[in-house]
Amino acid sequence: MSIQQHYQLYVQYLEANGFNGTPGNLYDSMHYIMQLRGKRIRPILCLMGAESVGGNPQESLILAHAFEIFHNFSLVHDDIMDQSEMRRGMPTVHIQYNQPTAILAGDNMLIKAYQSLHAYNGPNKDRIVEIFSAMASKVCEGQQADMNYSTQDDVGEDQYLQMIENKTAVLLGACLACGALSANASEAIANKLHAFAICIGLSFQLVDDYLDTFGESGTVGKVIGGDIMEGKKTWLYIKSCEASKETKNWYLTTSGTSRVALVKQQWIEMGLDKALLKKTAVYDQQGITLLAELESLGVSSKKLKELLSYLSDRSH
Amino acid sequence: MSIQQHYQLYVQYLEANGFNGTPGNLYDSMHYIMQLRGKRIRPILCLMGAESVGGNPQESLILAHAFEIFHNFSLVHDDIMDQSEMRRGMPTVHIQYNQPTAILAGDNMLIKAYQSLHAYNGPNKDRIVEIFSAMASKVCEGQQADMNYSTQDDVGEDQYLQMIENKTAVLLGACLACGALSANASEAIANKLHAFAICIGLSFQLVDDYLDTFGESGTVGKVIGGDIMEGKKTWLYIKSCEASKETKNWYLTTSGTSRVALVKQQWIEMGLDKALLKKTAVYDQQGITLLAELESLGVSSKKLKELLSYLSDRSH
Repeated sequence: MSIQQHYQLYVQYLEANGFNGTPGNLYDSMHYIMQLRGKRIRPILCLMGAESVGGNPQESLILAHAFEIFHNFSLVHDDIMDQSEMRRGMPTVHIQYNQPTAILAGDNMLIKAYQSLHAYNGPNKDRIVEIFSAMASKVCEGQQADMNYSTQDDVGEDQYLQMIENKTAVLLGACLACGALSANASEAIANKLHAFAICIGLSFQLVDDYLDTFGESGTVGKVIGGDIMEGKKTWLYIKSCEASKETKNWYLTTSGTSRVALVKQQWIEMGLDKALLKKTAVYDQQGITLLAELESLGVSSKKLKELLSYLSDRSH
Repeated sequence: MSIQQHYQLYVQYLEANGFNGTPGNLYDSMHYIMQLRGKRIRPILCLMGAESVGGNPQESLILAHAFEIFHNFSLVHDDIMDQSEMRRGMPTVHIQYNQPTAILAGDNMLIKAYQSLHAYNGPNKDRIVEIFSAMASKVCEGQQADMNYSTQDDVGEDQYLQMIENKTAVLLGACLACGALSANASEAIANKLHAFAICIGLSFQLVDDYLDTFGESGTVGKVIGGDIMEGKKTWLYIKSCEASKETKNWYLTTSGTSRVALVKQQWIEMGLDKALLKKTAVYDQQGITLLAELESLGVSSKKLKELLSYLSDRSH
């Protein structure tokens, strides 16, 4: 099956299993976020995890759905915390409805994710539920760390990488590993698939940081310099502080678009653009090594390589 | 075991299983709400459910803990939605910490409740997990309905009763039923225990409404007339609208303490104080009938009767 077919398979399942209940506004708000267009990366990862070890993706759909519901729960609550007004070109749930409804929609989606997880009746159920909860808790920890960092003065590179691993990468790892476990993968294979997804998640997030500062607006499809304008403590900022104690002064003093140009120039002079690409290459290389190991364990890695190119298409 | 012993048993378990993790502020906030003094009614109900069918409460502690964590999750999020600043004489979590941390604390507690549920390995696990999730979703629906009613003009008695059943009573029902199921109760007994707890939950909530308007401040331990001052749409208000179309005018036009006296007088003249007590007596009677049926099925109902008096002690 191609990635496009995995996508179609999941989207059909989603359409047939939409949220519906009383009070109407609660269930409408849950339906609303689930229907916003997206790449559906997490359910696809879950289906591919099953297929990579010879399983039938159809049988993992209910798990794929649990992960996608969980992901959307986290988006709804994160958007409240980050006070984001738009998501995928549409108003966020707390803007479209209201904040109390958005809190409850998220809560109910987290419960519905567990209901989908419990409705799964294939191999390794207990282990899958265990991985799911451990992941879910780490996602909360990552979001809390991210918020703490905005007022924290001494965030190191390791802490930052741990934060993006918890906030983003562990969910990808859980999707791929649980998909494989649902098709009877061994613990050793599931662990390596988990580690592989962590690598691509970290690489993806760091490339995101790179493009936000050094990308071309036309290619990336969004305004460049958003992180700098917000004064976000990204990998670039942290490394810049390590290299020069004066970073804090010029990073936070000027404002708006003039700041973007200034900061970009400074960081290029410091060689941070190249250093960031080098950092992502380390994770990519770790991923390739893991793929080779997986191949030797009998896992079909062809699809996982395709996935890398699907993920790196930033036009969505 | 006496109710006091059930209380002690759970509190010791809670102390030995406190939340602890990184980031510190996230786990501190979860610990904070769990440690606020309370009657621990839900875990006690769970332990009593086990004991009422001959089980050992010790073996149901992990389930009791799942229910108490769930209850505290709902308090943290409800307090944000209701903008409550105090709970049990202490600042609420979003006041003591901040709103984003309170949202994440609730999310993480919901996950931790499921982790405690999954760590249970006794009889009827699948059924217990199923009851737990159905209950959890109903609690969200009840809270949404409660919020909707504040701007809704045509709330009927049945809708109001459904709302308080979802928001409060189904959790009590799930605690008692799941406790019994964990001690190998039959589905028939679990269902009757569930129905019994729903009755006492509804009666408790309606007595709460009664005391808020007609109680004595010294006995109830809080200011009388809070619901009226807030213009809350309680059972009394709904029945008052049914009896007189002019209720809306005088219920919402005057303000403060003068409103309390006026509304109280009108409602006593309409006989609503007696009607409300009569309504609660119907649920109490249903509860007593269910207890007799449970007794004939071999369930020890002595403790459940004690529970009724523990619940009706409003001094906590």
